[in-house]
Amino acid sequence: MKFVKNAVGRLIPEEINGKKAIPFMGRGKHKPSGRKVGPPIPSAADYKAGDKLVESIDKVLDKLPLRDGMTISFHHHLRNGDVLVNMVVDKIAERGIKDITLAPSALFPVHEPLIRHIKSGVIANIEGSMNGPIGKLCTAGGFKKTAILRSHGGRYRAIQDGDLHIDVAFIAAPTADAHGNANGLYGPSACGPLGFALADSLYADNVVVVTDNLVDFPCYPWAIQGGNVDYVVKIDSLGDPSKIVSGTTKITTVPDRLKIASWAAQLVRDAGLLDEPNFSFQAGAGGMSLAFVKYLGEHMREKNCVAAFARGGSTGLLVELLKEGLVKFILDGQSFDLEGVKSLAENPNHIDTNPFVSYCYHTKGCFASMVKVAVLGATEIDLNFNVNVNTHSDGWLLHGIGGFQDTTDSYMTIITAPLVRKTNPIVVDSVYTVTAPGEAIDVLVTEYGIAINPNRQDLIDRLKNSTLPIVPIEQLREKALEIVGGKVPPKPETTDRVVAAIEWRDGTVIDVVRQLVVDGDEV
Amino acid sequence: MKFVKNAVGRLIPEEINGKKAIPFMGRGKHKPSGRKVGPPIPSAADYKAGDKLVESIDKVLDKLPLRDGMTISFHHHLRNGDVLVNMVVDKIAERGIKDITLAPSALFPVHEPLIRHIKSGVIANIEGSMNGPIGKLCTAGGFKKTAILRSHGGRYRAIQDGDLHIDVAFIAAPTADAHGNANGLYGPSACGPLGFALADSLYADNVVVVTDNLVDFPCYPWAIQGGNVDYVVKIDSLGDPSKIVSGTTKITTVPDRLKIASWAAQLVRDAGLLDEPNFSFQAGAGGMSLAFVKYLGEHMREKNCVAAFARGGSTGLLVELLKEGLVKFILDGQSFDLEGVKSLAENPNHIDTNPFVSYCYHTKGCFASMVKVAVLGATEIDLNFNVNVNTHSDGWLLHGIGGFQDTTDSYMTIITAPLVRKTNPIVVDSVYTVTAPGEAIDVLVTEYGIAINPNRQDLIDRLKNSTLPIVPIEQLREKALEIVGGKVPPKPETTDRVVAAIEWRDGTVIDVVRQLVVDGDEV
Repeated sequence: MKFVKNAVGRLIPEEINGKKAIPFMGRGKHKPSGRKVGPPIPSAADYKAGDKLVESIDKVLDKLPLRDGMTISFHHHLRNGDVLVNMVVDKIAERGIKDITLAPSALFPVHEPLIRHIKSGVIANIEGSMNGPIGKLCTAGGFKKTAILRSHGGRYRAIQDGDLHIDVAFIAAPTADAHGNANGLYGPSACGPLGFALADSLYADNVVVVTDNLVDFPCYPWAIQGGNVDYVVKIDSLGDPSKIVSGTTKITTVPDRLKIASWAAQLVRDAGLLDEPNFSFQAGAGGMSLAFVKYLGEHMREKNCVAAFARGGSTGLLVELLKEGLVKFILDGQSFDLEGVKSLAENPNHIDTNPFVSYCYHTKGCFASMVKVAVLGATEIDLNFNVNVNTHSDGWLLHGIGGFQDTTDSYMTIITAPLVRKTNPIVVDSVYTVTAPGEAIDVLVTEYGIAINPNRQDLIDRLKNSTLPIVPIEQLREKALEIVGGKVPPKPETTDRVVAAIEWRDGTVIDVVRQLVVDGDEV
Repeated sequence: MKFVKNAVGRLIPEEINGKKAIPFMGRGKHKPSGRKVGPPIPSAADYKAGDKLVESIDKVLDKLPLRDGMTISFHHHLRNGDVLVNMVVDKIAERGIKDITLAPSALFPVHEPLIRHIKSGVIANIEGSMNGPIGKLCTAGGFKKTAILRSHGGRYRAIQDGDLHIDVAFIAAPTADAHGNANGLYGPSACGPLGFALADSLYADNVVVVTDNLVDFPCYPWAIQGGNVDYVVKIDSLGDPSKIVSGTTKITTVPDRLKIASWAAQLVRDAGLLDEPNFSFQAGAGGMSLAFVKYLGEHMREKNCVAAFARGGSTGLLVELLKEGLVKFILDGQSFDLEGVKSLAENPNHIDTNPFVSYCYHTKGCFASMVKVAVLGATEIDLNFNVNVNTHSDGWLLHGIGGFQDTTDSYMTIITAPLVRKTNPIVVDSVYTVTAPGEAIDVLVTEYGIAINPNRQDLIDRLKNSTLPIVPIEQLREKALEIVGGKVPPKPETTDRVVAAIEWRDGTVIDVVRQLVVDGDEV
């Protein structure tokens, strides 16, 4: 296999899983050609509109054209409470189907039982996302094929562009009618948006809606439209509500993390962004992100700044800002807690979105680039501002991309991270895996200082009068090394085998992950 | 040119405009193959998300790849108040572009100025719909090509399936933001839904949103999504609000028509449909349809029947039933009056729909077949229950199909019509043009009696105890002849040239219209 060096200096194989791989060329450099893929043309004559009920998952599997090598997909809005992925894959395995590709928008610890299906050959590959134990198995060479990791927007793009063909999409739907209209707003398994399943519903050959809350037609809003759905199955429960959404997301209480969050918020203020019209922001549901939102809210009140919108993942804290009027709209991609779910169902200014409108790069523009400030975490960041969110510095692939790459399209992308985790410096000479190129990352905020990407002279100018400790990133690297006593973790020992490819959101390959040389007992 | 006889006995040319024509095979008989068409894959790198404003229609025409022979499209939600169609075609004509195909979802009398562009060769053809003076010109042979008429659902299907390729879609948007998100709910040109433009936005190569009410991002609901839009243009006015929606639609006061409406409503009651769960209905905005809805409401109150939904076109009368609780939801495709527009914007149970969810036959089911009772008008109906809504018996093509064909998918499709108009019997031996096959039509209600299609024995059984004057359709034909003193209008004299094709909603050709032999002064 030949390898080609891409725009961030990583060696990319010419082919991945038998298809030509396009090396990352730099942001906005790859121009797509051709047309979006079309799903098969159905005829309403073959469907009983308003009544597509099938009595069980087993009966629906009887009707589906199951075959070795097929690709099946799932969404992750039910997070760690989901039962559908394991249930369906178990049943497919029982039928002796082999070599399937699993295309989930994300996996969670609850999906660890999939490991036996990977080891037995039922699952040959995963395209989309993975984490934890399944990521470990992948890193150790346990997959037959090369896993492909994509961001949320990248997954929509891949499905839309025909790179990821889905034979059967299984859509866990907290509320649905017998026509297949579905949403995530109501019912015992309410999860908020269902947007991660949208592309699946539009482009898969076969679409199955599975619900534990069947309602009369019309189920509205119809985040998933019945006109795209083949079968509807009612099951007793889609999962564990307490794990689908957390009760309430909590702000960090760790002093260093509060400091980082506070500095990030002050940075936004000092950059003058709260004094300009159309301010908007995005932050996650982690304790440090929530602290950032809290501090940001305080600055906004002082400045009489009202944000044009906040981009969710929604949290109770964001909902409070919406209610207070500090934020005009929440554009929500997933609800992280119960308050987020409730608000999306009730507040007309809390708007349901999906990766087409928010994140997909192969559109005529999406919201990601309209966000002024995005705050994101990382496992590593290097002197070129390249960021890694997928692997740890010991070489294990443990995390999906999520919306990370897509979110970096904001005007000011801020990475918040402690300078050292355990004994690992977070600022490194060169990240083990590039998830996003340095050109997409604008600021790093640590508890020891703030580094601004030198290619963002406009931000440097904006912040020239700030009292914040703005320093070159090299200085943060030195400080990190000082903290760990100069001890750099050893470089992971790998084979030549590429076990996973990290796609940039435009479908080019930004990096690969190689198989670790490990003791067999490790996975 | 060879002709083939289709399932309703009409001769269909083997080719239309150089493409193979598929003769109508009977309802549900034609099975589509292949995949839906994909629009070109764009890159967000080529768009400034959130700011696609171009200062004028002229400037946007400068940017578009205009060429001879291209197809441009418009929607008709602004009805007879629209200024955009004429404005754009005038400007395209000024640029010397020729032989374009116009693909409007419908045309209105206000579009009569297009005639000069047809005569001058700027417009070579119309695909979609037409009416009045333009229809006359078509019938007289004034088009270069064969016009293709499609229902609302058929138009969506044709665009989706790739039969109707749109180079540039111009979307008149009563409210829009600079990203291209748009709806019809607000602003001086508010029209209600924008669903007829949905397919255009999804599948056209280039999409231009034109608004007279530019709002801050996010314009929500986004019936049209900015991710599909290339350019946004703000103009002073999209049209004349008094002609976009009528003030209030009015119930007929003509005694015979009230009688027809009353009988139709009683028929629904006597058929027992109000005693069953999930009753639903659809009627138009004409005076007789409104009277039907009024009478139906009275029966529903008596029976304590609550409709699961009513399918709009919405009217003030329908909105009253929604408010009263006689109807749970209005599924609206277009708002016929101001009360309809206001309700759609304000009432969460008044739901915006589009032809994909409601009418498109090449879906995995649409709402049309879930409607229990549909009441429709006709220009002619024959002894086989074939219905004509396109031509008059004198051969002039004066009307589009609208949602007629799609709506016939309801459980009980009722044609309401006076037995004679002027000196023309409405019940005829054989309709001049078949818009819908008799197998899709269940009942004819006239002021002289009611005929039930003999192929609907189930309805005949349901109505066996009704006191309504149910008679064979032949008897209504005889009565009509008696009224006109046995004088049947002469058969129109035509040439062999096919000037228009009437597509059934599945894309097959159900009939054609031939060029009339006319005095040149007539058109």
